[in-house]
Amino acid sequence: MGDFSNYGGSEEENAEIRRLNSEVDADTDNFENWEKLVRACEALEGGLNRNSSPQALATLRDTYDRFLLKFPLLFGYWKKYADLEFNISGPESAEMVYERGCASITNSVDLWTEYCSFKMETTHTPHLVRELFERAAGFVGLDFLAHPFWDKYLEYEERQEAQDKIFAILNRVIHIPMHQYARYFERFRQLSHTRPLSELVPADALARYRAEVETEGAQYGIQRTEAEVERDIRAKIDAAFYIIFQRTQTETNKRWTYESEIKRPYFHVTELEHQQLINWRKYLDFEESEGNYTRIICLYERCLVTCAFYEEFWFRYARWMSAQEDKEEEVRNIYLRAVTLFVPISRPGIRLQFAYFEEMCGRVDVARDMHAAILAQLPDCVEAIVSWGNLQRRQSGLDAAIEVYKAQIDSPTVDIFTKAALVTEWAFLLWKVKGSVDEARTVFVKNVQWYADSRHFWQKWLQFELEQPTNEQIEPKIGEEIKAVVAEMRTKSRLSASVRQELCQGYLNYLQQRGGKDAMKEFLTVDREIFGPVSIAAKAKLSGKENGVALGELDDAVRQKAEGRYYSYYELYIDPDMAAQGPATFH
Amino acid sequence: MGDFSNYGGSEEENAEIRRLNSEVDADTDNFENWEKLVRACEALEGGLNRNSSPQALATLRDTYDRFLLKFPLLFGYWKKYADLEFNISGPESAEMVYERGCASITNSVDLWTEYCSFKMETTHTPHLVRELFERAAGFVGLDFLAHPFWDKYLEYEERQEAQDKIFAILNRVIHIPMHQYARYFERFRQLSHTRPLSELVPADALARYRAEVETEGAQYGIQRTEAEVERDIRAKIDAAFYIIFQRTQTETNKRWTYESEIKRPYFHVTELEHQQLINWRKYLDFEESEGNYTRIICLYERCLVTCAFYEEFWFRYARWMSAQEDKEEEVRNIYLRAVTLFVPISRPGIRLQFAYFEEMCGRVDVARDMHAAILAQLPDCVEAIVSWGNLQRRQSGLDAAIEVYKAQIDSPTVDIFTKAALVTEWAFLLWKVKGSVDEARTVFVKNVQWYADSRHFWQKWLQFELEQPTNEQIEPKIGEEIKAVVAEMRTKSRLSASVRQELCQGYLNYLQQRGGKDAMKEFLTVDREIFGPVSIAAKAKLSGKENGVALGELDDAVRQKAEGRYYSYYELYIDPDMAAQGPATFH
Repeated sequence: MGDFSNYGGSEEENAEIRRLNSEVDADTDNFENWEKLVRACEALEGGLNRNSSPQALATLRDTYDRFLLKFPLLFGYWKKYADLEFNISGPESAEMVYERGCASITNSVDLWTEYCSFKMETTHTPHLVRELFERAAGFVGLDFLAHPFWDKYLEYEERQEAQDKIFAILNRVIHIPMHQYARYFERFRQLSHTRPLSELVPADALARYRAEVETEGAQYGIQRTEAEVERDIRAKIDAAFYIIFQRTQTETNKRWTYESEIKRPYFHVTELEHQQLINWRKYLDFEESEGNYTRIICLYERCLVTCAFYEEFWFRYARWMSAQEDKEEEVRNIYLRAVTLFVPISRPGIRLQFAYFEEMCGRVDVARDMHAAILAQLPDCVEAIVSWGNLQRRQSGLDAAIEVYKAQIDSPTVDIFTKAALVTEWAFLLWKVKGSVDEARTVFVKNVQWYADSRHFWQKWLQFELEQPTNEQIEPKIGEEIKAVVAEMRTKSRLSASVRQELCQGYLNYLQQRGGKDAMKEFLTVDREIFGPVSIAAKAKLSGKENGVALGELDDAVRQKAEGRYYSYYELYIDPDMAAQGPATFH
Repeated sequence: MGDFSNYGGSEEENAEIRRLNSEVDADTDNFENWEKLVRACEALEGGLNRNSSPQALATLRDTYDRFLLKFPLLFGYWKKYADLEFNISGPESAEMVYERGCASITNSVDLWTEYCSFKMETTHTPHLVRELFERAAGFVGLDFLAHPFWDKYLEYEERQEAQDKIFAILNRVIHIPMHQYARYFERFRQLSHTRPLSELVPADALARYRAEVETEGAQYGIQRTEAEVERDIRAKIDAAFYIIFQRTQTETNKRWTYESEIKRPYFHVTELEHQQLINWRKYLDFEESEGNYTRIICLYERCLVTCAFYEEFWFRYARWMSAQEDKEEEVRNIYLRAVTLFVPISRPGIRLQFAYFEEMCGRVDVARDMHAAILAQLPDCVEAIVSWGNLQRRQSGLDAAIEVYKAQIDSPTVDIFTKAALVTEWAFLLWKVKGSVDEARTVFVKNVQWYADSRHFWQKWLQFELEQPTNEQIEPKIGEEIKAVVAEMRTKSRLSASVRQELCQGYLNYLQQRGGKDAMKEFLTVDREIFGPVSIAAKAKLSGKENGVALGELDDAVRQKAEGRYYSYYELYIDPDMAAQGPATFH
């Protein structure tokens, strides 16, 4: 932008744009603010054209660039931007915008059609125009609603009066299941009657038809003119075309069910209805079962324009693609688009999965960097830290893993409850990976002074103690050790009653399953103290006191963190609800 | 009943009673059928009296006995039964019914009052009547709505013209927080003015008042007559009485909040509103915090008439009582009433807790018998079988515990999924208690052929394998073993996708936390096969096939059992919802 105080407008205009810019910066997800900013830029100097000031033009371009970097799927704005560039700087600039737009939203029938339309108006070299039409056909030709594109292509060839090319285009189109398949077939059939036989079918097929017709004639001993033979061959070809029509019709009808349910085929920042997501899922299931790779890709790409903010479909696309042979680069590309543009950083799941993918591909450093990047945006993300620790353990060993936890625990900015969770991971590494029960126990014992309010800390400590092997001959006192941890939890922590109850349930199970002859005395004591009425819980005098002094209560916000649970994204996976109603949240 | 075809009525009447009896037998919880049966019996021979046939009387008595054994808290029916007996056989029989009734519902103000009323009409020996009134006062005198009883007592003493006894009764009543406390105080005060000083207060108090009055008189040097002195003493006593009144008033008001919320003070078979349960909880909290043992007991007993079918209050009463000193017999009695009469057998929790209580008291055989009794009623109750196995382990050792599981597993009537759960308990005993990993693994490996459709079986097998210590130096292949179990689960079981996903999550965690350098390859493969779309899950060809032959689907009822989870009652405990609305289910 260079000069930040001059957007190229009047003082009021500049002030307005400055205000709108700061609103956009404050909340980059707010689509309405972006729209206001774009409108304000376009209105600079009473509407921009090739005589506008360089500042105003720079302001406009900068705004459009930032806007479309944020929302690349808005094909309408790419078109508008291209039109503006055309007016300002001419066709070369406009073409650049179209190229960028079509790279950003590769499967927009509208944008490609606009681009081709622009190209045929501004270019007089037919092979360049045709090249573009062919590129476009590769990206959007299979779309169920591709008819505006095909119509434009046909229109161009009509202008060129290239009947053979028109016929060739139609001969491709009639195989594609599309909304307007019947119209194209009708035109194709009519045209076929005027085209020479050699254009209608390949030479070998033509020879076969001719042989058939002649054989049939010979059966009845009839001598026929060449015109009569051609008529019969045409009838056979017509019949063969009709079979193609019927197949296309069948394929179209199969997809009609799903296509007719798509209420919003374009990208928008607002939520979709659950019914829409359900329809996309079913449609993808259907197209996958049909097994045509190109068609499946095409449908995923359409789905991910509409459902770009629903991580479910990115996950699905990546998983589906990774099950195909030799598609590492394609998989990487899907993850990349998902994480850089669409799925919000607050859901680190797909980013972590991307990192695992890179780790699998041997790009361990990339995987490490991805974890660092998540943490840069989401400090205190326990899931990401633990994932990082595990990555280090797998690739560089135990000490490297512990280094990850140590760095976070030593950091002054990391939350105390995050640290509590990491300390338990550390202890579990010592226990499970190093095999040192004593070192693990020491970690818990030494750290309880800091983390006594963390539900997770106690849960893990209790789990650790409860899972230790018991053998009454060798260690008759192990029950006492657990009892002590439970008592400590009940004296030192400030957790709510229901959390204490839950934590004690493992101890009650332990008394049932591993306790000795007198275990039920302790069982019933704990039972009444944690499940009984307040009057006897208070009697037990175990709750929230240290050295006889009552600890303060945790306030609600702190309690929520103190009692938090940490899951991996795959532990939270639930199958989509196929009966859900109303709008579906992005998160 | 002896003769089952003759109920002592006409042929039609007998047929009707037979029908009603069989309806009652078919559904003993159905209160309306019971009522119809009772009415039909009462109507035999145009209404029963002392001249009715022995059969008809036997039918009536048998019906009432069975009805009131089932619903002992219906005080109105006890009264009716007593009236009928009075008409049929005279006062001795009626008295027997009252005794049984008051033993069954010990805290019914109505029933005790009726009994006393009956007694004072039929007995001419005052000390016997007074004895009954005093017994009644012990059971219901403290009730907030005890005024009908106290009024009856006062009425009796009025008939005896025993002014001193009337005054003594009132002198007790004025200390009790009751709905009609003010009325009794007014009468007491009036009466006190007519009673000799020596009756009003104990001798030492009287001497103190006299001394005070004389001292005050001496201050002013006034000589007063004995009448003047008595007037002043009475004024002082009056003031002291007023302090009692104020205290009783305060105590009454404190309870008024809760008492006024009690919409149904009597027993009924229908559900209560949540608001009613909430009020009882708060009232009990309040009375417990006041700390008067007798008043607390009295309130629990009232609560348990109204809330007899809500196990929460039985649990609470037992827990509260067990926190008091030396109340073993009282606790036992609470459990006994809860399990024999009120809490339905379908909820074995309180029965198990009763068994633990008896085990704690050293009555191990009783605890065993209780488990057997639960199973007799609830075969396939995994919770009870496992609890029994644990009881045996604690008291008689590992082999005794295994015997419990063996017996169930060998039984032809026990459900296959129950057996699956018990087999895992067996394996865990071998692992956790005996310390033999190999024996435990053998149990899983050998039994998978029978229990491959049990979610629980796989959960426990996977837990067992995942919790084994890994040390890559010693056992580099442990990951392979788990992988094999996961693969076996996915090939051999017919569990639903979501259950497989859940079971695989432990494996995914394992790969993260314990897997080696290449673990993410396996991670991403499992990830896409269990979370990916159907098309690639099908490609994995792991689902529900054995030797390449697809296994049949489980039907819904079987699936529900196959995927069942088993909890202990204390694991399902949740704090009562203090904001719940509408009727509260018994279960």
